Amino acid sequence: MTTLTNRRWVMASRPDPDVREDNFRLEAVPVVAPGPGQFLLRTLYLSVAPVMRMYMLDGAGIEKPLEIGETMRGRGVAEVIVSNHPDYAVGDIVQGKIGWQEYSVSDGSPYYMMYKVQQRLVPFSTALGVLGMTGFTSYLGLTEVGRIKAGDSVLVSGAAGGVGSNCGFIARNLGCRAVGIAGTDEKCRLLVERLGYTAAINYRSEDVERRVGELCPDGVDLYFDNVGGAILDAGLAHINRYARVVLCGRISEYLKSDGEQYALRNWWRVGQRRARMEGFFIYDLEAGFAAAETQMAQWIAAGRMSYQEDLLEGLEQMPRALIRLYTGANVGKQVVKVAA
Amino acid sequence: MTTLTNRRWVMASRPDPDVREDNFRLEAVPVVAPGPGQFLLRTLYLSVAPVMRMYMLDGAGIEKPLEIGETMRGRGVAEVIVSNHPDYAVGDIVQGKIGWQEYSVSDGSPYYMMYKVQQRLVPFSTALGVLGMTGFTSYLGLTEVGRIKAGDSVLVSGAAGGVGSNCGFIARNLGCRAVGIAGTDEKCRLLVERLGYTAAINYRSEDVERRVGELCPDGVDLYFDNVGGAILDAGLAHINRYARVVLCGRISEYLKSDGEQYALRNWWRVGQRRARMEGFFIYDLEAGFAAAETQMAQWIAAGRMSYQEDLLEGLEQMPRALIRLYTGANVGKQVVKVAA
Repeated sequence: MTTLTNRRWVMASRPDPDVREDNFRLEAVPVVAPGPGQFLLRTLYLSVAPVMRMYMLDGAGIEKPLEIGETMRGRGVAEVIVSNHPDYAVGDIVQGKIGWQEYSVSDGSPYYMMYKVQQRLVPFSTALGVLGMTGFTSYLGLTEVGRIKAGDSVLVSGAAGGVGSNCGFIARNLGCRAVGIAGTDEKCRLLVERLGYTAAINYRSEDVERRVGELCPDGVDLYFDNVGGAILDAGLAHINRYARVVLCGRISEYLKSDGEQYALRNWWRVGQRRARMEGFFIYDLEAGFAAAETQMAQWIAAGRMSYQEDLLEGLEQMPRALIRLYTGANVGKQVVKVAA
Repeated sequence: MTTLTNRRWVMASRPDPDVREDNFRLEAVPVVAPGPGQFLLRTLYLSVAPVMRMYMLDGAGIEKPLEIGETMRGRGVAEVIVSNHPDYAVGDIVQGKIGWQEYSVSDGSPYYMMYKVQQRLVPFSTALGVLGMTGFTSYLGLTEVGRIKAGDSVLVSGAAGGVGSNCGFIARNLGCRAVGIAGTDEKCRLLVERLGYTAAINYRSEDVERRVGELCPDGVDLYFDNVGGAILDAGLAHINRYARVVLCGRISEYLKSDGEQYALRNWWRVGQRRARMEGFFIYDLEAGFAAAETQMAQWIAAGRMSYQEDLLEGLEQMPRALIRLYTGANVGKQVVKVAA
């Protein structure tokens, strides 16, 4: 063990206000041997997410802020290479909070939010996107919360986003037609041409309520809403009896303070149509992760589902990968390959 | 059979605009023998409901309007006295659409919305109120839609109304505390002193949102809403994680046209709190009627639940019984006893 070196990124300074490459410092330290009940992980892929800037600020109120000199926090996919833990065997592939580094030690406790990658059909990088929390949110939001059934007319807002972009193919593969709502003509083309949607609505240039009526002439059975506000209202106007409205996100409302929230006109249709409107937290649906992974891996391997990934090579790319998110340079899920 | 006479009330004229006793005429006709697949019913109790005025008007749009000379439509409790139907035996007690008459013939088809009264613990008149659709709505709305569990903090709006007035005892008997919202101090006293509620809020004289916070300091787990609008909003401000919001009625909104509907501020808390807001139709929960009836009959017989009934004696009282609803003369469910 003593011959192994761990390269890791630590926070050198706080963003002021933007994240820059000199906010990070690459260190090399000896790998620590795992103690009793612990296991050693070799990182394969790392993920970046916009929220990371918030961890780097002091007092942003999202999780505990990072200290200067602390290893950057983040999720990745890794292989177990030494194990003193009965539930983790050498060769297991896991996804969890392993940090921006080549090697890490974990005890599998809740902090690490770790789960095993079971599928062997498609690259492990997918565990950070379509076969990770993002894709599980799409799949389990539609199946368990939305109780999708063949023949449903499905409406998805934020359809070109991380969660929404998986919903078109999932709905199609389960025998449904899905109409997606997005904010540019280019995204709308993407929805129909590459993401399995039957039709798309540009909410900036079209009357959403009228267009939903035209594209879903028999009403909406399942509304997977990533947006909230006026776009939620427009979809509610068309819900069918027994419709399920899955509240997955409220991006339209996150930046507003309490008094400014959009007031919903069509709430009463939930009662009138004997419908259900429901929020959820993906970790409450953990029992479904394995089934979601297996099903979507099969679809991807069979060419019945696609995903978009923006892959950079090498741990040294991490700061650049993160900054790409804020400049909008990435196309699809931004991932860094650390080892093969 | 030929010796039996059926007295029945027919509509003599339409309300103009109020319902008056001379809108009705009492007739006596021979009882018709039931044909193949039919059964003959002897009426025990009849019910009146405010909607009956709408049936009497021409073109009110609620069900098919009555014709002049037609027997008044309505629900009642009756005993099977002759049967040519395999599912109905002589001596069975049924509740259904039997009309304002002493005898009626039915084939048990969906039009009659008939179900059998199973309980023998309390008077059959209860099948028109607490052990009928009203009480089933309270019980199944709380248990099946609201998935009530011991320890829940329950909030009920329209708590002194038909459905709401049963919710206090149901919640209490299932190990919960219920806070009721009503519109007068007298109703609020009734809720606490006689209907099983832990506390009450007068929405006309109190700040509902603030008072819910004070009376439910740990938040609301189950909101049974009979009202909608601003009172729904006030309750939503306090819902807990995984709360269930049962949309049972929207009395605040029924008289408004589309553009005038109250816009809901706190809809987003349903998503944020991983909660569920759901409407329902009581006939979709028919599988639960027998259990609801059995459980509530036991509670009533054991003195653990009360109900309010305003009983008049004799078929001839029917027009007066109906008119009492419009003048607010009745206290509790208005029922007429036709035969013992």
